[in-house]
Amino acid sequence: MPMLSSRILTLAQPSLRHHARPLFARRLYSSYTNSSSDNLAKQVPYTSESHPHLQRDSRFKKLTSEDIHYFKSVLPPNSVLEADGVNYTEEDLLPYNQDWFKTYRGNSKVVLKPRTVTEVSDILKYCNNEGLAVVPQGGNTSVCGASVPVFDEIVINTSNMNKIRSFDALSGVVTCDAGCILENLDDYLAERNYMVPLDLGAKGCCQIGGNISTNAGGIRFLRYGSLRGNVLGLEAVLPDGTILDNMSTLRKDNTGYDLKQLLIGAEGTLGMVTGVSLLTPRRLKVINAVLFGLNSFDQVQETFVKAKDKLNEILSAFEFWDEPSLYYGQHLTSKDYRVPLEKKYPFYVLVETRGSHEEHDRQKLEAFIEDLFDQGQIGDGVIAQDVAQFNNLWSIRDSLGESWGGGMPMYKYDLGLPVPVLYKIVENLRERLQHHGVLGPNGPAKHVTGFGHIGDGNLHLGIFAERYDDKLASLIEPYVFEFVEKYNGSVTAEHGLGIKNSTFIGYSKSPAMVNLMRSMKSELDPKGIMNPYKVL
Amino acid sequence: MPMLSSRILTLAQPSLRHHARPLFARRLYSSYTNSSSDNLAKQVPYTSESHPHLQRDSRFKKLTSEDIHYFKSVLPPNSVLEADGVNYTEEDLLPYNQDWFKTYRGNSKVVLKPRTVTEVSDILKYCNNEGLAVVPQGGNTSVCGASVPVFDEIVINTSNMNKIRSFDALSGVVTCDAGCILENLDDYLAERNYMVPLDLGAKGCCQIGGNISTNAGGIRFLRYGSLRGNVLGLEAVLPDGTILDNMSTLRKDNTGYDLKQLLIGAEGTLGMVTGVSLLTPRRLKVINAVLFGLNSFDQVQETFVKAKDKLNEILSAFEFWDEPSLYYGQHLTSKDYRVPLEKKYPFYVLVETRGSHEEHDRQKLEAFIEDLFDQGQIGDGVIAQDVAQFNNLWSIRDSLGESWGGGMPMYKYDLGLPVPVLYKIVENLRERLQHHGVLGPNGPAKHVTGFGHIGDGNLHLGIFAERYDDKLASLIEPYVFEFVEKYNGSVTAEHGLGIKNSTFIGYSKSPAMVNLMRSMKSELDPKGIMNPYKVL
Ligand SMILES: Cc1cc2nc3c(=O)[nH]c(=O)nc-3n(C[C@H](O)[C@H](O)[C@H](O)COP(=O)(O)OP(=O)(O)OC[C@H]3O[C@@H](n4cnc5c(N)ncnc54)[C@H](O)[C@@H]3O)c2cc1C
Ligand SMILES: Cc1cc2nc3c(=O)[nH]c(=O)nc-3n(C[C@H](O)[C@H](O)[C@H](O)COP(=O)(O)OP(=O)(O)OC[C@H]3O[C@@H](n4cnc5c(N)ncnc54)[C@H](O)[C@@H]3O)c2cc1C
Repeated sequence: MPMLSSRILTLAQPSLRHHARPLFARRLYSSYTNSSSDNLAKQVPYTSESHPHLQRDSRFKKLTSEDIHYFKSVLPPNSVLEADGVNYTEEDLLPYNQDWFKTYRGNSKVVLKPRTVTEVSDILKYCNNEGLAVVPQGGNTSVCGASVPVFDEIVINTSNMNKIRSFDALSGVVTCDAGCILENLDDYLAERNYMVPLDLGAKGCCQIGGNISTNAGGIRFLRYGSLRGNVLGLEAVLPDGTILDNMSTLRKDNTGYDLKQLLIGAEGTLGMVTGVSLLTPRRLKVINAVLFGLNSFDQVQETFVKAKDKLNEILSAFEFWDEPSLYYGQHLTSKDYRVPLEKKYPFYVLVETRGSHEEHDRQKLEAFIEDLFDQGQIGDGVIAQDVAQFNNLWSIRDSLGESWGGGMPMYKYDLGLPVPVLYKIVENLRERLQHHGVLGPNGPAKHVTGFGHIGDGNLHLGIFAERYDDKLASLIEPYVFEFVEKYNGSVTAEHGLGIKNSTFIGYSKSPAMVNLMRSMKSELDPKGIMNPYKVL
Repeated sequence: MPMLSSRILTLAQPSLRHHARPLFARRLYSSYTNSSSDNLAKQVPYTSESHPHLQRDSRFKKLTSEDIHYFKSVLPPNSVLEADGVNYTEEDLLPYNQDWFKTYRGNSKVVLKPRTVTEVSDILKYCNNEGLAVVPQGGNTSVCGASVPVFDEIVINTSNMNKIRSFDALSGVVTCDAGCILENLDDYLAERNYMVPLDLGAKGCCQIGGNISTNAGGIRFLRYGSLRGNVLGLEAVLPDGTILDNMSTLRKDNTGYDLKQLLIGAEGTLGMVTGVSLLTPRRLKVINAVLFGLNSFDQVQETFVKAKDKLNEILSAFEFWDEPSLYYGQHLTSKDYRVPLEKKYPFYVLVETRGSHEEHDRQKLEAFIEDLFDQGQIGDGVIAQDVAQFNNLWSIRDSLGESWGGGMPMYKYDLGLPVPVLYKIVENLRERLQHHGVLGPNGPAKHVTGFGHIGDGNLHLGIFAERYDDKLASLIEPYVFEFVEKYNGSVTAEHGLGIKNSTFIGYSKSPAMVNLMRSMKSELDPKGIMNPYKVL
């Protein structure tokens, strides 16, 4: 790739439109089957053991053979996966019991894979009557342990609900089942010159129903905004089996309260999403990506302001990361990439544009880069010239998320903060851990790292460690949350509460807000069967 | 203005950025004080008389002098407007009792004008304890009678809550009181190169709290999407006085259920919004507007598809109207404009672009127009060359909404429909009324008209009449609603339910959905004091 500093600007080809990013997530389930169950049992302790403060709620009934019999009577063959040691073993159920980050492990004995909303309704109605707890599950890529059982909750997995129902090329509205894999949906739309207004590292595996249930953010958020604004309708089932059929394809509909908003981001605790109606934007033909090396977080911020000014309506992503995220994380991932800058920088920024006119976009990008160089704001930079280089730049960015699942003991946070203090927490924490002698070659902490979606005020803070350590943990928490509270930040910007963050909600929400959430929960799910031990 | 057909393209100046649209709405209150109360009493009958099926709920207490005494004790001087015949007359209270479209008229004896969230909390807590019904009121520009009392409900008007609290130039996040007038807020942001992602004909009078409570749509919706995606936080008061302090300035915050969404579009029936945190986009410097005359609704649709293709990221509005909306409505408005086309067309389209680069935008617009001419899709067109011409084009569009308040008896509908059948309802209804001999010079119906935000699938259907007529009414309803139901449309796309549409919710929402709304209502407002007789 040519260095930008040489001022030779070459632009990505329009053919980038169908760029194929390598999909680590595709390997999600196979990674389990490659190992023996013994190894795995050693690897990830049961959540009930690692989180002894969580007690099984005795209100919930234990699964019986009558229950299995009922499920088999309402579901098609091969849709009831029971760990009976005959048809399925516990190992077969491990991919549903254990989370992607290998932090949580439940002990469910049955996985249900319905195909239709009626089947979901039958299941939930039965479970509600019987007092059987359930966990809705999509692609199981949750970062906060939300998608796996804690004890013996029944897993209702949506993988078999994977049909696209309709697409209207005039309005760009697509309707589909909740279990459509994000990438498949995006590919379907790509063929029709549209795209999902959402993209994230786990796209090859996560499902649109899971995305909606976590109100996922990701890298297109900066341009297309929140899912809340793009979801036009939902089909959902309440715990008592009531079907809410609101698959509206209208952009505007002000007939009463917008109930679907309650389900968006509810992490499966209020009901199950079975169908989705989504407004999708045109797929823009001209895509460019530039990687910059920068010397300070101030430069990162200034570059962001410049990007908003100069790239304006074509700016489509603005991601940043620090040196240790990249160079320490690198060996933990399977991503194949090369950092195409001559030396290392404390900070990196990846800027993407999407527009409709090659020449116009090139001129805007040129003006942006010229301006940055003139003001001495960047150390160095490269611009992708073809699909391979474009994919390479995004592989670097994707590797950061993947490194978090790389098997190292790790303290992970997904914080929402005002941009000016977004990186201050990394610096402060680094200093604090150094001061207490727990960071560095002698560990236990190895690196305090930060990366994220700067345009959205979203930092992924990761402390890589040799081992989990009580002293280290006590220096990190509640320190991190107090920092967030001080700046009116969010203890979970996009990943959700799940098991991991549920006890920290008070740092971001007042008691009055939490109380109201609780009354919503008991209104919609009076028996508490939906994804218990999570969120509230 | 040059005709486009001559292929001479001249573009709007960047100075259009601060275009000042004439503001009819500013005249809102003065129109009352110019008439005598006698006249007005004759003009608009009390809602309780025109809607005899509505009965005052006997659970609600009638106002006493103790109540007034209490309100005076918690509010600053001049904030309690009581029609005691001494300080204030009934006429003084008319602007608060009567709606802008002069269709509804309540009979409240007191208007409260709090300044702070604590005052609102004190008021609501008291009213809730005492069983006094209230109506939250912003700019009182509601199209469905939502903002005025039906009987003697206490009006809580937010006009005195009009402070901008903070603005962050890096993120574009503004926080302000609910009573800020939309236009004032937009002017404030304009000075800082940002804008409210919302614009509508009533901007000089409606308030951001009212906009949020109606989930208002308007002409920037096409580009910036729904308020639901742009509101980052709300400060609100529940009926029992509980303050929900959620003035988040974060773009992302997934800590639990998104309670603010319940209040957005709730039309004041669940609580009062007192503060708002809003994500605002950059104000783009280059603005253009083109008016086309077209021969069919098919051409309108084709022009829309072309606009999405060719203008893409710079397309900022796409409005259409039919000939009778314009030429019949014209004499009912005070708008000063000239239609700058040589002859009349059955359809008109107004296309606006907003971008950051004058030359780029001009080229995109040129390509768009060339293409339309090449394909014979347009009859004629003009492009605005300066601020005056730009304002003139928008005045035409604004006049359409204003004509609805022009004093003629009128049947008005705000429908959400799939674009392909958006205009079919106008044609079908016209045919139907003609067939039954009620449309034409002999009336009672004069014209069946349609205009709207085509990009959002939003039609404003208006039947101008000489007089209200039972036969005519029975030919229009439920016909219109059955049409909407058939195409899974919305009986109120952006205006809300209020009094006008509340009985029609069943055409757009299933009984299960309506039931769930009702349980939300009784959960949040168990005594039903918030804006009764509306919405549900
Ligand atoms: C490498 C990697 C990168 C990631 N990057 C991002 C990112 O950039 N931004 C981001 O926001 N997230 C990110 N995530 C997190 C995760 O991918 C998202 O939260 C995703 O939306 C989850 O989708 P899923 O289908 O895997 O849901 P799951 O993990 O299966 O479930 C998530 C939650 O939703 C519930 N749920 C799932 N389906 C349904 C349903 N149909 N009805 C009701 N509830 C349901 C579950 O009970 C659970 O609470 C990343 C994860 C990984 C592994
Ligand atoms: C000429 C004209 C053009 C219009 N064009 C459009 C358009 O293009 N798009 C569109 O969507 N609407 C349009 N409207 C309708 C109207 O302007 C909008 O609904 C607007 O959002 C109402 O704001 P307001 O401040 O006037 O609210 P009000 O009319 O005072 O109140 C509206 C509703 O919100 C409630 N409310 C008001 N403030 C609060 C608060 N602080 N807390 C809780 N509840 C509250 C009221 O009780 C009522 O139910 C138009 C109206 C006119 C007169």
